[in-house]
Amino acid sequence: MKYAIVGTGAIGGFYGGELARIGKDVHFLLRSDYEFVKQNGLKVHSVNGDFCINPINAYNDAKQMPQCDIILVCMKTTQNHLLPELLYPLVKPSTCIVLVQNGLNIEKKLASSYPDIDIAAGMAFVCCNKIKIGEIMHLDYGKLTVSPYQGKCSYLKTLCNDLTEAGIDNYLWEEYVTARWRKLVWNIPYNGLTVVLNTTTELLMKNKASRQLVKELMEEVRAGGLACGADIPDNFIDEMLKSTDQMRPYDPSMRLDFLRHHQMEIEAIYSNPIAAAHNAGVEMPKIAMLEKQLKFIQAGYLQKV
Amino acid sequence: MKYAIVGTGAIGGFYGGELARIGKDVHFLLRSDYEFVKQNGLKVHSVNGDFCINPINAYNDAKQMPQCDIILVCMKTTQNHLLPELLYPLVKPSTCIVLVQNGLNIEKKLASSYPDIDIAAGMAFVCCNKIKIGEIMHLDYGKLTVSPYQGKCSYLKTLCNDLTEAGIDNYLWEEYVTARWRKLVWNIPYNGLTVVLNTTTELLMKNKASRQLVKELMEEVRAGGLACGADIPDNFIDEMLKSTDQMRPYDPSMRLDFLRHHQMEIEAIYSNPIAAAHNAGVEMPKIAMLEKQLKFIQAGYLQKV
Repeated sequence: MKYAIVGTGAIGGFYGGELARIGKDVHFLLRSDYEFVKQNGLKVHSVNGDFCINPINAYNDAKQMPQCDIILVCMKTTQNHLLPELLYPLVKPSTCIVLVQNGLNIEKKLASSYPDIDIAAGMAFVCCNKIKIGEIMHLDYGKLTVSPYQGKCSYLKTLCNDLTEAGIDNYLWEEYVTARWRKLVWNIPYNGLTVVLNTTTELLMKNKASRQLVKELMEEVRAGGLACGADIPDNFIDEMLKSTDQMRPYDPSMRLDFLRHHQMEIEAIYSNPIAAAHNAGVEMPKIAMLEKQLKFIQAGYLQKV
Repeated sequence: MKYAIVGTGAIGGFYGGELARIGKDVHFLLRSDYEFVKQNGLKVHSVNGDFCINPINAYNDAKQMPQCDIILVCMKTTQNHLLPELLYPLVKPSTCIVLVQNGLNIEKKLASSYPDIDIAAGMAFVCCNKIKIGEIMHLDYGKLTVSPYQGKCSYLKTLCNDLTEAGIDNYLWEEYVTARWRKLVWNIPYNGLTVVLNTTTELLMKNKASRQLVKELMEEVRAGGLACGADIPDNFIDEMLKSTDQMRPYDPSMRLDFLRHHQMEIEAIYSNPIAAAHNAGVEMPKIAMLEKQLKFIQAGYLQKV
């Protein structure tokens, strides 16, 4: 069973690293870190123990990679337009492509290019960052939830077994819509508000007004998700607020992108859910406002005082 | 006819200065600028011509001021809890108090302290700033709209005549609710968004997403205002957008407060209209979101990158 990690950043480095650590056949696609990692290996500093993958199957060109059984796509969704061509050398008829990415309906374009290939969603509940070239810091959590989007995706069971063997919590969830929308309940308020208000999840939770706003945004996500057929129970929001209170201070991925002047995943995390809810007859006005504020910031109009 | 200017900042300095320039009996209450202005007079640099009021009836204590016929209150609404005591020495039974301030229902508390005194609203459509101690810069516009809130406010006619004599555009509008809500159509989007997105009205209008958001916020204000009985015609929003396009770049007052680390007028401009619309059966979700974002920023949680 061959694994490909497409995009060896924090998420790809962590899951790919953990699979390689227990001896799985993992092939890593890298860009800027390629030369360093090829020479020095991939270091993972983890709350579960540190390790280094060296030697490593590292590539800087997908065309040099073997065809793989399971492809974990761990790039940002802002690059997803490149996927159909990029994945071509890696895909064989039995391949299962797992988009370990944030957002909703991000599999759609890929599915239209690969209508007969298994495509799945991956929702990473993990706090990890790339701290320097070739080094990943895993701070907290780690669970990977996977869910079939197109095809039977029977390899997801293998993936889950291998993750379990590596000591990584995981869950195979048959309902794509529920799995993606539940993750959005967290992603939509915290990603956008930490950028727009230039702050951390911790401070958002401390201030009474912003905490209330987080909750109201979650309620809008829930209403949108329910309209789309997601199963999000009544008490889900309170539990998510509670679990965020207990989380150690952590910058959501969109805030990191913002601080690094990278493109933000506005389409995947905001525009697609807004469109899906709209098509199901539900408007999400506050989320639509957050989307527009983010687009303004994205456009580079943010002035520094 | 004696005038009192309570709060000689940009607005009070401009209107009071223009009235004093044509020989009206104007008495200015100042705080930090008192000594300087008493010595050097009040300078107004205006697009209509520069002038200096010297000698000037300047005071740093309201108890030293004479009772006045018309009191223009030009302080920030964040100080309005001080008004009942502050105005006591200036008020006689025939006095008309005009709150030249932003927001809605800001006259309520004052009216409960002075139930038999004429109280009016003043809406200043003027671009002016205090550029240094004792110096006001008038950049654009100048119109003062006044509207009775409590009592007959017959002195408003005198005020309008005197403003006309001073070359200042003015309008006496009998409908308080309409006058205040129409001003909110501009104030609500631009004040809040220039703070939350740390930008200018000009850049908000240039970016497609933020321009659309400005318009949507205006539509919420209009819906709230209509529910409260305000008369805001269909095309009012488009005209306001057009007039903002033509405005020279200008920082709304809330953005100036934010940049100077002063308290922002969140209650007057956001909380009061939200409550009034709510009582009239209309929610304004995006405006409520803006209010919460501003409260977060106000709480001092804004981190500098």
